[in-house]
Amino acid sequence: MSEPYPEGPEQARARAWFESLRDRICAAFEAIEEACRSPFAQGRPPGRFERTAWQRPGGGGGVMAIMRGRVFEKVGVNVSTVWGTFEPRFAAQIPGAEADPRFWASGISLVAHLWSPHVPPAHMNTRHIRTTRSWFGGGADLNPIVPDPEDTARFHARLEAACASYAPDAYARFKAWADEYFFIPHRGEPRGVGGIFYDYLEGDFERHFAFTRAVGEAFLEVYPQIVRRHMDRPWTEQERAHQLVRRGRYVEFNLLYDRGTRFGLETGGNPDAILMSLPPLVAWP
Amino acid sequence: MSEPYPEGPEQARARAWFESLRDRICAAFEAIEEACRSPFAQGRPPGRFERTAWQRPGGGGGVMAIMRGRVFEKVGVNVSTVWGTFEPRFAAQIPGAEADPRFWASGISLVAHLWSPHVPPAHMNTRHIRTTRSWFGGGADLNPIVPDPEDTARFHARLEAACASYAPDAYARFKAWADEYFFIPHRGEPRGVGGIFYDYLEGDFERHFAFTRAVGEAFLEVYPQIVRRHMDRPWTEQERAHQLVRRGRYVEFNLLYDRGTRFGLETGGNPDAILMSLPPLVAWP
Repeated sequence: MSEPYPEGPEQARARAWFESLRDRICAAFEAIEEACRSPFAQGRPPGRFERTAWQRPGGGGGVMAIMRGRVFEKVGVNVSTVWGTFEPRFAAQIPGAEADPRFWASGISLVAHLWSPHVPPAHMNTRHIRTTRSWFGGGADLNPIVPDPEDTARFHARLEAACASYAPDAYARFKAWADEYFFIPHRGEPRGVGGIFYDYLEGDFERHFAFTRAVGEAFLEVYPQIVRRHMDRPWTEQERAHQLVRRGRYVEFNLLYDRGTRFGLETGGNPDAILMSLPPLVAWP
Repeated sequence: MSEPYPEGPEQARARAWFESLRDRICAAFEAIEEACRSPFAQGRPPGRFERTAWQRPGGGGGVMAIMRGRVFEKVGVNVSTVWGTFEPRFAAQIPGAEADPRFWASGISLVAHLWSPHVPPAHMNTRHIRTTRSWFGGGADLNPIVPDPEDTARFHARLEAACASYAPDAYARFKAWADEYFFIPHRGEPRGVGGIFYDYLEGDFERHFAFTRAVGEAFLEVYPQIVRRHMDRPWTEQERAHQLVRRGRYVEFNLLYDRGTRFGLETGGNPDAILMSLPPLVAWP
């Protein structure tokens, strides 16, 4: 029980997928930086992702890819693959780790914050976790400063299409789960316009892996479209000020409620990678 | 058991003290605003506190006093007096509420964020809580952007003097408690240069109330001195940028670890009053 899990062929495929999706997303976002014609870019050059590798003391590590550009004020795409042994109090909470606390986990996590208050911030995360059981989980949601019905409809429609290939009721279930999860209880308000959230998809690796890939493909297709729709539109100081306030809600959610954030920090994850999701500038006026 | 606690004479005295301390602190901070001669005030007028009363649905309420000035970028002094019945999961965690979940609580809470990176932000909070038991708790700490040994020494010396009137070992114990409490585990760093933290002082109301007043008097005396030492000193853009980053640590602590914040939000407190502590502008670059 003291030997960590070896990375089996299924785990290797999941990890390779997360890494290749990361590469394609980074390329799509860099192309957006090139395409920007907004006078609000104020002479900033097109952004490029910078990658930083980190090691996890207990096993594994990851690569942070972060870009500070002229469309994306700060966007992070983190891939990590970690393994080791859960501390007893976590082992009790994790399916399949109650008796054998070893784990292996790999995933991609993306959060985008943009200069323009017209371009909605977005989040996407998918992961594969192995204990004595193994499953996929993830989600994606859109967090506009001022919701745009056309963006909301496009985003949900593309996720719905990804879900349709998985199960007839998947979109309804995973959308409802997102509405429940991405909610800020102390404000009594959703953190954005939703998306999907799912977890503990276990049993048929090929089927759940295909769904996880479909979610990644959906995000990669629809989010750049949404960014390009609005990125060259001017904004006012008032709109920017409102954006900074709305970003505060995102911080409140992430630090108070987000399971991944709390789990990562409490299990000794890399705080810089975990908190890469926080917005570059935030106001609580 | 369904009737809430009446406010007894001791509770009324504690509440009146918190309110009078609030009035004196607000006056001292407004005098600082008047005294400011910094060219960095950029024509801003001296700040004045604005007060907003709020009601708590379950019983009681409070008054937020907030000032956005030219020395104090944002400072909140909140007094609240609330009562009611703890939900079962909280009652189990609160001394004296296990069998009878009724409570009464009053306190003052102050957080100051300043324009100048040279003036240290500060926090002070004291409270009196009554269940079937009753006790005082509180604390104060200094959170400089760049620690100044003279400020740190003054702040601790004045709190030490307040503790000396209470018990010979009080300062050592309460300083150690602050060092333990005001610590950011995921960063592996203290959130500031410490102060004191104490809780569950019960048994001799007069003695603990006198100590709580001494802590308030100490803060009222020493913190304005520290603000005035630095408030007219110029700063650079780099120093301001570093200040915004350091404020992020304060947000991380408050939302991830602060007991009062989590307790307040989870028991249906007023989020605007509870989160008044968050800095006006913060960067995670």
